[in-house]
Amino acid sequence: MKVKLVLLCVLTLVFASTYNDPAGAQTTDALPSWNGGKTKQSIVSFVEKVTTTGSPDFVPPAERIATFDNDGTLWAEQPMYFQLFFALDRVKALAPKRPEWKGKEPFASLLKGDVKGAFAGGDKAILEIVMATHAGMTTEAFEKIVKDWVASAKHPKSGRLYTEMVYQPMIELLAYLRSQGFKTFIVSGGGVEFMRPWTERVYGIPPEQVVGSSIKTKFELRDGKPAIVRLPELNFIDDKAGKPVGINQYIGRRPIAAFGNSDGDLQMLQWTTAGAGARFALIVHHTDAEREWAYDRKSSVGRLDKALDEAKAKGWTVVDMKNDWKTVFTFEKK
Amino acid sequence: MKVKLVLLCVLTLVFASTYNDPAGAQTTDALPSWNGGKTKQSIVSFVEKVTTTGSPDFVPPAERIATFDNDGTLWAEQPMYFQLFFALDRVKALAPKRPEWKGKEPFASLLKGDVKGAFAGGDKAILEIVMATHAGMTTEAFEKIVKDWVASAKHPKSGRLYTEMVYQPMIELLAYLRSQGFKTFIVSGGGVEFMRPWTERVYGIPPEQVVGSSIKTKFELRDGKPAIVRLPELNFIDDKAGKPVGINQYIGRRPIAAFGNSDGDLQMLQWTTAGAGARFALIVHHTDAEREWAYDRKSSVGRLDKALDEAKAKGWTVVDMKNDWKTVFTFEKK
Repeated sequence: MKVKLVLLCVLTLVFASTYNDPAGAQTTDALPSWNGGKTKQSIVSFVEKVTTTGSPDFVPPAERIATFDNDGTLWAEQPMYFQLFFALDRVKALAPKRPEWKGKEPFASLLKGDVKGAFAGGDKAILEIVMATHAGMTTEAFEKIVKDWVASAKHPKSGRLYTEMVYQPMIELLAYLRSQGFKTFIVSGGGVEFMRPWTERVYGIPPEQVVGSSIKTKFELRDGKPAIVRLPELNFIDDKAGKPVGINQYIGRRPIAAFGNSDGDLQMLQWTTAGAGARFALIVHHTDAEREWAYDRKSSVGRLDKALDEAKAKGWTVVDMKNDWKTVFTFEKK
Repeated sequence: MKVKLVLLCVLTLVFASTYNDPAGAQTTDALPSWNGGKTKQSIVSFVEKVTTTGSPDFVPPAERIATFDNDGTLWAEQPMYFQLFFALDRVKALAPKRPEWKGKEPFASLLKGDVKGAFAGGDKAILEIVMATHAGMTTEAFEKIVKDWVASAKHPKSGRLYTEMVYQPMIELLAYLRSQGFKTFIVSGGGVEFMRPWTERVYGIPPEQVVGSSIKTKFELRDGKPAIVRLPELNFIDDKAGKPVGINQYIGRRPIAAFGNSDGDLQMLQWTTAGAGARFALIVHHTDAEREWAYDRKSSVGRLDKALDEAKAKGWTVVDMKNDWKTVFTFEKK
């Protein structure tokens, strides 16, 4: 009796859902902000290949690991990495308590509004700025600072929140992959604790799936209360050859698909595609000077040179932003 | 019409499922290897509290992070950490190619079967053994070595595979938590790449949810083929104060429940329970000299002293293995 009831019910539901969809097999487009063409097709073909049971390229859900660079791949990175805007805002906010900065580079130039002058000191200057603004507090205090900043700071060109300058086509791609059983990770040169406070809300990627650069931390009891304190010492740089190292260290398996936009992602793409079975590598090429920015081989931010050559040689998918993307930023949808 | 059909169907399914369960609310015991009593009750009460919608202690699924120590918490650790048995077996296997070891400590003692003599050199000796056996190969080669070892090596006392010396009550607990929306992680002082090749099969915990100690690695192209090579240099020690640091670095959020068995877990339990809202801390106390081992304050392996005092002072759950566990090892079930 029970079996019959359940069977009847299943048939009813099947009928009800078919009734609703006159075209039968027709499905909605999971990637509406992508124009049709070979780029979009390469993504869909790969996903169908690895998710079709019985296909020679089938990959079990647990192994469907996809890694995404962040700067220039999920959100914009011009005229400079957004985390640097954060650092500069922090320098300004902290300056009243650090009067000595007025006579000390790179802070003196920064406080006079001369960003170029401040960065003349190269990596050493950047490191000093990062440590002065990212270390010395507990992880909880830093999380709050980041949350407050992303909720209020505006991009100098668009006037938008930085978290609105994320790419709508990539947001759709993340959701599409997850709907197909993929686990999506960020693997970024950016600071891991700068990203974690907002990646779940903005990208649907939880903190434990964010890999990034980090400074050292220390556990201590402060008046008997446990705290993790951020130290002014580099721990790990998750860029270039550091990306596969970070993937191995944090995720512990090789991705089957990887997404980047610059030479900083080259080794991640190499590592991903060198695995056995079907693999997918995609590079976002910034070709849209009107809606976004156009830059590649000669840009100081997000340089795309060697990876572009290798993409062509190896047949990786290269997104031509201008032609492949119907919409660029999520704020255009509003 | 369609709405009515669906409604009828839902009612049918509800009826069918109730019909199958005459007791109505009765559910099966998710923890059959745990004896009834306050220990088991404390686990179930906590889980019900944080998973009941509308409860003041409700925690959204994304934040239901539970971290487990491995040695002595999920599998046994006597008469010494199982990873040391692995290292010793590797020394024996590699010895023919390393004739110089015959005249060099700690290897000389080891090869004569004098484990105690080898370890007389303390941490330095252990580090030398670990580096000689865990570094110098690619991550893929190491994974194969570990898989081969766990598939064949036997524990000297039980004669069982090491992966059969896992605790049946803890396996049930892991599955129970996952069935209630928890994400389960290992946070162990053991080597992360020593655990990852088998934790998914044995514990249902995938590689990306294993946090552990690690050595440094390097990405390189070997004849054009990407490889990650293991270097003889410590990267991170995930023990004691390193556990909250590792949790923050790899997981990026504070667990709401943590499970350990020794002073090496104390800081993880402190960090976990110091968070806001309902928290749970559990210590496995090895009290069963017959079925397993009985040890605590004076053991050189898995010493439980300060953490036992703090557990009592703070009301953490302490498992009395002898009385709380109906079954100890999974192999007893067979």
